[in-house]
Amino acid sequence: MTTEEILAATALHSWKLVIGRFNDFIAPLNDEQLQRQIAPGRNRLVYLVGHLTATHDRMFPMLGLGQRLHPEFDEPYLTNPDRTLPDPASPSEVKNAWTEVNSKLTAAFEALTPKEWLQKHSAVTTEEFAKEPLRNRLAVLMSRTGHVAFHAGQAILTK
Amino acid sequence: MTTEEILAATALHSWKLVIGRFNDFIAPLNDEQLQRQIAPGRNRLVYLVGHLTATHDRMFPMLGLGQRLHPEFDEPYLTNPDRTLPDPASPSEVKNAWTEVNSKLTAAFEALTPKEWLQKHSAVTTEEFAKEPLRNRLAVLMSRTGHVAFHAGQAILTK
Repeated sequence: MTTEEILAATALHSWKLVIGRFNDFIAPLNDEQLQRQIAPGRNRLVYLVGHLTATHDRMFPMLGLGQRLHPEFDEPYLTNPDRTLPDPASPSEVKNAWTEVNSKLTAAFEALTPKEWLQKHSAVTTEEFAKEPLRNRLAVLMSRTGHVAFHAGQAILTK
Repeated sequence: MTTEEILAATALHSWKLVIGRFNDFIAPLNDEQLQRQIAPGRNRLVYLVGHLTATHDRMFPMLGLGQRLHPEFDEPYLTNPDRTLPDPASPSEVKNAWTEVNSKLTAAFEALTPKEWLQKHSAVTTEEFAKEPLRNRLAVLMSRTGHVAFHAGQAILTK
């Protein structure tokens, strides 16, 4: 492997590790346990899972990797606070959607070359990107990896 | 910049963003506010800051970047749970140590070339590293970036 290939692979490995740890945490939880709040009056675990699923699902068009799988999660889990709208699916179904979205995303990521990781994403203009080349696909991957870790730190409080 | 230079710079930018956001959050907090718990009976904010400082301080020897600055934080903030030992410094002093450690670390990171990011760290043996080249310095940077995000997700609950 070349230096640039190992650099990109290291970043992708970090994504997989963080997703894998979150999966291990929620995998054994049943619907009732997924309804737990991370602290009194705060988000429920299922809201966090739906929120992360919607955020990751948006990466398909953002990174030019295909169509979204679960746009119906945006309203209840992304643009509105928890318990504002009814859940569009059972907690187990939300958990399955999370797994499905990440599996397809990760497969698409595996196919990207280092140079493709450095291409611009659709949320940045050509003019902006010319000035700020660090606003690339890899930056989105790392930002989303950190976002999972952020909510994982909250999810763990339900233990 | 070459592809490998942009890849490494993107990762370092992600570290700076996450640290910067955490700094912005704790900067305005006084000693009393830093004593708040993230949830009833859970870690205090100052414990999280001390814990992150100790973890980052250990990166100096781990990544071969120099001597530690605050080994006295390990006992109260890393190897023991919160409120087991007395705080070794005031919350403001812990916050200053956090800033100091990150400034020196980030300056050292800025000087690393892409190839140097891919070198092994001291927590992996030469034999292990030969089999698993992704256990490099960059992986540690990303792991620590995620670790800050993990605790930032908890810290924000005190708002």
